[in-house]
Amino acid sequence: MSDAHKREAEKITLAHGSGGRMMQRLIREVFLEYFDSTELANLDDAAELIIDKSRLAFSTDTFVVKPIFFPGGDIGSLAVSGTVNDVLMKGGCPLYLSLAFVIEEGFPMQDLTRILESIRATAKRAEIDVVTGDTKVVGRGEADGIFINTTGVGVILPGVDVGGRNAKVGDAIIVSGDIGAHGIAVMAERNGLKLEGDIRSDAAPLNRAVLPLLERFGEAVHVMRDPTRGGVATALNEIAVSSAVGIVLEEAVIPVSEPVTAVCDILGLDPLCLPCEGRFLVFVDPAVADDVLSFLSDLEECSNASKIGEVKGSSSGEVQLNTVTGGKRLLDMPAGEMLPRIC
Amino acid sequence: MSDAHKREAEKITLAHGSGGRMMQRLIREVFLEYFDSTELANLDDAAELIIDKSRLAFSTDTFVVKPIFFPGGDIGSLAVSGTVNDVLMKGGCPLYLSLAFVIEEGFPMQDLTRILESIRATAKRAEIDVVTGDTKVVGRGEADGIFINTTGVGVILPGVDVGGRNAKVGDAIIVSGDIGAHGIAVMAERNGLKLEGDIRSDAAPLNRAVLPLLERFGEAVHVMRDPTRGGVATALNEIAVSSAVGIVLEEAVIPVSEPVTAVCDILGLDPLCLPCEGRFLVFVDPAVADDVLSFLSDLEECSNASKIGEVKGSSSGEVQLNTVTGGKRLLDMPAGEMLPRIC
Repeated sequence: MSDAHKREAEKITLAHGSGGRMMQRLIREVFLEYFDSTELANLDDAAELIIDKSRLAFSTDTFVVKPIFFPGGDIGSLAVSGTVNDVLMKGGCPLYLSLAFVIEEGFPMQDLTRILESIRATAKRAEIDVVTGDTKVVGRGEADGIFINTTGVGVILPGVDVGGRNAKVGDAIIVSGDIGAHGIAVMAERNGLKLEGDIRSDAAPLNRAVLPLLERFGEAVHVMRDPTRGGVATALNEIAVSSAVGIVLEEAVIPVSEPVTAVCDILGLDPLCLPCEGRFLVFVDPAVADDVLSFLSDLEECSNASKIGEVKGSSSGEVQLNTVTGGKRLLDMPAGEMLPRIC
Repeated sequence: MSDAHKREAEKITLAHGSGGRMMQRLIREVFLEYFDSTELANLDDAAELIIDKSRLAFSTDTFVVKPIFFPGGDIGSLAVSGTVNDVLMKGGCPLYLSLAFVIEEGFPMQDLTRILESIRATAKRAEIDVVTGDTKVVGRGEADGIFINTTGVGVILPGVDVGGRNAKVGDAIIVSGDIGAHGIAVMAERNGLKLEGDIRSDAAPLNRAVLPLLERFGEAVHVMRDPTRGGVATALNEIAVSSAVGIVLEEAVIPVSEPVTAVCDILGLDPLCLPCEGRFLVFVDPAVADDVLSFLSDLEECSNASKIGEVKGSSSGEVQLNTVTGGKRLLDMPAGEMLPRIC
């Protein structure tokens, strides 16, 4: 078959929503074909809008997590945190949020009010106002319980210019805390797994870490990204390609909690591919790396922050992992879908 | 059962998504309980945001229309028009749009590209830029094909202050064209009905009518509302309540095309409860009513514009219909769901 015929016969698969290679292809080869937008082509999690003289960060996400309630959070807290964090990752101070529901007929009102309470509490913590909304109801079997879209608007802090294209050779790469707990918590709840240790989702708004960080270190902060779908591996590969740089990671200093490590070992999962919903990666000028690390480590929610790698001179767009055992391997993003409906 | 117990046992029904009384109750008694926002409480289709010194209109909608392709449009053109029009109804010039998909596994790539092409064409016509997006894929049977959320941002024109609370006694009420075609076109396509006459959805962005109207008549324009879910009956009842006024409509001058009237007669549908996706209601100072009507009538897309009623002194929040046969009746909004998944 020719490429055109293959495309015609193609169907959407779960892998197209994975955050991995298949999703990258869908975005680059299908979506970007249709829209001539520099902002969209940047493939950051938020767009920068210029309105009058203001620079705004604008981000959208639909949440389809299954199950809707899980240890450490629920679809409501996740829907607020996810979009708030995407606005923050663009250097925006989150201000306004929209909220749009698709609800399946028969969904319990009690669950809806529990989710609304969670949205209220998380929005309060993130200091963002819910200002507009929409509710659609579809018939039984036409959706799976509830899906929530949130779209956020924030003002980008003066002097801040962060984005996936801005990684610079020499940058230190810092992760704000231990990775992978969100993915494991949701997966375990979905599959009824009893896990050793208390694994709770890390989902949380990152305001209290990100805004003071930007105020203090300003232009020395080059890239921020929350490693959600596809995890740290996907986020770093995307940044390496966008900035045309190479990245080297040190596996030994990547923070993963003991219970998450144990589950990953048993199930053969790579913590670097697991989604987080309350962690971020930050690329900073090496001159301030120690100060940034010490600043983050002093915050309760970032106490496990660690400098995990740096940007190298190569323009390969590749991520190299120096393993615990002294080896070197290329860290690719996952090809397909490891954990569907994780956010 | 006590009210609290009733609420606990309650489940979401299709009527909660109808745009009618049940949906009003859900919004007022459940959603507004959780969010202390003046903008949300206004219940306009867009919120007004103040950022620095700019006034922005911000609106979100998720589209779940079934079927996704119908005479005169598809879920893509609808998703752009719907949100663009909500931004316009708040007096905003639409600038930026986000696009978030929930797609069911197995959805044909060909249908996706057809929808993207339609989104591109409609966004171009509405002069709005798609700047950010999101794609989620759920398993087979976990959604019905494709759902699309769009969220739009626009700048409110200087001197313009429109909203559901601003209707003033004496205002003339003008509708921009014949009503109900969108509802009938989608319903007929869904049910495989062969209709007499060519009934196509009216779905279209309203920029070319609304922006010049606002520029020309400015503060004389008090309220704009596109009568989508629940139709003209719901829109006018909402405005009457929000502004604490009475409204009187003249049935004889409400424009309904012959084919739509014929279908409504056969099926027992009230055109005043049918959704439009390319029409708007505008409340203007009576001094400019004739000029507004003549201005609109000169535009191709508003050639059937008509002055259909006026605002009366009573603070009843009621809408009275003077019928063709010389009678008077209260026009209520529909109680439940006449046409599910119409947008």
